[in-house]
Amino acid sequence: MSTFGNIFKITTFGESHSKAVGVVVDNFPSNFAIDFDAIQTQLNRRKPGQSDITTPRSESDTFTVLSGTENGKSLGSPICFMVPNQDTKPEDYKQHELIPRPSHADFTYLWKYGIHAASGGGRSSARETIGRVIGGALAEQILKLHKVEIIAYVSQVGNIKLDDSINKTVSRDLVDKFKTRCPDEATDKQMEELILDLKNKGDSVGGKVSCVIRNCPRGLGEPVFNKLEAELVRAMLSIPATKGFEFGSGNF
Amino acid sequence: MSTFGNIFKITTFGESHSKAVGVVVDNFPSNFAIDFDAIQTQLNRRKPGQSDITTPRSESDTFTVLSGTENGKSLGSPICFMVPNQDTKPEDYKQHELIPRPSHADFTYLWKYGIHAASGGGRSSARETIGRVIGGALAEQILKLHKVEIIAYVSQVGNIKLDDSINKTVSRDLVDKFKTRCPDEATDKQMEELILDLKNKGDSVGGKVSCVIRNCPRGLGEPVFNKLEAELVRAMLSIPATKGFEFGSGNF
Amino acid sequence: MSTFGNIFKITTFGESHSKAVGVVVDNFPSNFAIDFDAIQTQLNRRKPGQSDITTPRSESDTFTVLSGTENGKSLGSPICFMVPNQDTKPEDYKQHELIPRPSHADFTYLWKYGIHAASGGGRSSARETIGRVIGGALAEQILKLHKVEIIAYVSQVGNIKLDDSINKTVSRDLVDKFKTRCPDEATDKQMEELILDLKNKGDSVGGKVSCVIRNCPRGLGEPVFNKLEAELVRAMLSIPATKGFEFGSGNF
Amino acid sequence: MSTFGNIFKITTFGESHSKAVGVVVDNFPSNFAIDFDAIQTQLNRRKPGQSDITTPRSESDTFTVLSGTENGKSLGSPICFMVPNQDTKPEDYKQHELIPRPSHADFTYLWKYGIHAASGGGRSSARETIGRVIGGALAEQILKLHKVEIIAYVSQVGNIKLDDSINKTVSRDLVDKFKTRCPDEATDKQMEELILDLKNKGDSVGGKVSCVIRNCPRGLGEPVFNKLEAELVRAMLSIPATKGFEFGSGNF
Repeated sequence: MSTFGNIFKITTFGESHSKAVGVVVDNFPSNFAIDFDAIQTQLNRRKPGQSDITTPRSESDTFTVLSGTENGKSLGSPICFMVPNQDTKPEDYKQHELIPRPSHADFTYLWKYGIHAASGGGRSSARETIGRVIGGALAEQILKLHKVEIIAYVSQVGNIKLDDSINKTVSRDLVDKFKTRCPDEATDKQMEELILDLKNKGDSVGGKVSCVIRNCPRGLGEPVFNKLEAELVRAMLSIPATKGFEFGSGNF
Repeated sequence: MSTFGNIFKITTFGESHSKAVGVVVDNFPSNFAIDFDAIQTQLNRRKPGQSDITTPRSESDTFTVLSGTENGKSLGSPICFMVPNQDTKPEDYKQHELIPRPSHADFTYLWKYGIHAASGGGRSSARETIGRVIGGALAEQILKLHKVEIIAYVSQVGNIKLDDSINKTVSRDLVDKFKTRCPDEATDKQMEELILDLKNKGDSVGGKVSCVIRNCPRGLGEPVFNKLEAELVRAMLSIPATKGFEFGSGNF
Repeated sequence: MSTFGNIFKITTFGESHSKAVGVVVDNFPSNFAIDFDAIQTQLNRRKPGQSDITTPRSESDTFTVLSGTENGKSLGSPICFMVPNQDTKPEDYKQHELIPRPSHADFTYLWKYGIHAASGGGRSSARETIGRVIGGALAEQILKLHKVEIIAYVSQVGNIKLDDSINKTVSRDLVDKFKTRCPDEATDKQMEELILDLKNKGDSVGGKVSCVIRNCPRGLGEPVFNKLEAELVRAMLSIPATKGFEFGSGNF
Repeated sequence: MSTFGNIFKITTFGESHSKAVGVVVDNFPSNFAIDFDAIQTQLNRRKPGQSDITTPRSESDTFTVLSGTENGKSLGSPICFMVPNQDTKPEDYKQHELIPRPSHADFTYLWKYGIHAASGGGRSSARETIGRVIGGALAEQILKLHKVEIIAYVSQVGNIKLDDSINKTVSRDLVDKFKTRCPDEATDKQMEELILDLKNKGDSVGGKVSCVIRNCPRGLGEPVFNKLEAELVRAMLSIPATKGFEFGSGNF
């Protein structure tokens, strides 16, 4: 299933090397003046190729709105965003030569579907998250009316950790100042060195993302099966290569 | 909500005068060689402007596949079809001048959403059915593997009726020979005259569509809330201006 | 699936001869003083054995509330109602002797599930509707706050019809005065005679139910796939032996 | 919402001190000889009062099957299990005296619903998990046909941890030998002492549960929003007081 949400719903589509990736956003409030620049800002934050520590794929990631708005206002109908795939090099990937990469979704797709997109990533490519970023950037415009503020940052890479004392003051602007998105100059430097060192050895490394939510309204979520934690974690663990989640700041 | 289906799901998007209309088809079987010509054939059957008894809007209704297939085969991922809107004349419709047309969805949209697409139709336009036709044309390719055959035809216009004795022999080819889609020469002629007569008077008229399903497998549908009848009728009554449904041939 | 509804949801359970039938009602408003007598009143209206023209099964149909309320008020949690099956005569039905009755769900259940409840009805028994009546009686208590009034009556049995001019004045009290639930003395008499005549011949007869909704708010339902008509018809055609639906009073 | 699952679905109902708690299990395979003893075994494992380190509430937790089975076999219809609440002492809890307990769901329920079950736990009571245990015990009977084996054990209490080298050999029988469900004699002893020590001081302590799944089929779960991890974590974080989840054994 490619749909997420109960009332506000997003349906993402697209593979790494298909004509486009995108999202249909359903049940967004009507008659709302959408800030499209804010959406592009978030897509730019997501974009690969921003530094030498990320994937080098080059895409402008500019969206076209196919439906659901008029004169910048939402109509109450489904809003379809399309982002073309430009940097596709089909010659890089030949299906009959596909050798599943270790620890990648390749083999599972082939097993489950009997076919795999010729490009390595296919549907499991991180380009699929473009639709989620657009959906999130739209949702955020509603959340802002309720003063909700959401800031995520990299808090760990390998064994290099940032203390959570920054949670009180961290801002998105601060986070964006650093290549690694770790909002502390010394830690960022260390993380970058580790990543580049491993990159040179043909390796990579995992990490942790911390997220601060300010002014979260009381009583969100359902009491049993759709608790706030359960919905958040379900969204987070549906992002490729995400394997864990902790809620709250209490550790032991 | 713009999504229909439990396992095989379609999500339609688009208004009468937005950039495009389309559909995301989810959970279509993977590794299936899609007959795209068969889809275009169905879109052509749907197209307005085929005769003087339908709406004159001129559209080529050619689709682009944005995702979900490669080399003509389905990947198991969501398949997004986009059909551009070409014959849009924004100057025909000015929002600040919108006077809801009687017996049309205009007023209800305005009441419910506080805004209405400047074009008369907006989301309630019959162009929305393009996504359903594509979804149906895809579903039919699976149903054909099970020898299921589905033929719909116009059986009544005003008080002019066609007897259901044709159900045993009717074919889609036969239906398509007639402007009114009523597969009987004399009745078709009468219907056409009635429609043109009313059209000249600035009026229109309702009718009935009959549908024959051959080789329908036993046991389809759920026993209580998603009976086969209930699912069919729900799909049918979600088509604009459809107001009734009868299942089975037994009348009294 | 045994669940119906998007926000206000009901999940029915139970067969003709299981220990009980019932319903779980989810997302009913909290802190609402439920009128339990009104629920029993509706169950009594549904009950078989009220006259010689219905099925003779004798059940008191009194419910027990297992969860979701305290001191007569709803807690916001799922409300489970249970109604025991008392008039079960397993000896009437022996599974190994099951011969599917013509035009009944027996054969389809056996085909689909490879097993059939020993009692003729099983899950397709009209006793399943007890859960829906309870769900509806609860929903009506909310609708009443919005002045919505819903009255259904029998308008046709065989070829005997009641004119819809009664729609303006009909009330539930009036309907309940008549055995056939056709709120017109002469027509009711004719219908009763027809039913008894056929019953004596070992036969039965179909009919129509008309429903009047007063003060229905504007804008209910979704614009495309969950239109008000589509949701109503889906509910109606999920009632056993219901095969048609018309919306609105315009006929031709 | 009180329903979990896409095809195999469970709907739980019941509060701490309502007449009963229970579950409706929908879409369980038909014509399957259910092992009811295996269900009771799991309910017994869940039961409070098994030792001095758990809550002392005394309940027999014996279930009644209200629907969906006949002669021990599933009918394909919803199976409703009911477990009466016996150890309810309404006098212990008086609604007008409710003072929300710190760090408990009490306040959130009151805020969200405007009412709270007089008993402290209400719907947030761990008794709600009875329905999940029954659903899980049923699901396990199907999984066993595929040789899937699931074993959970306590791997951490406070700072006392058990190494995951036990994962290869651990069995449910071994786990059940220990009060704390930590399948290692020395660690179990330490954990018990810590719990009792804190209990004597009027305090409690958190911990971790590890779960081993053997013979899990390849390709389970959906590729994007309903990944296996995402579904598991969503189920886990809907259990009261659960705040984190890690998937896989790779740590750093």
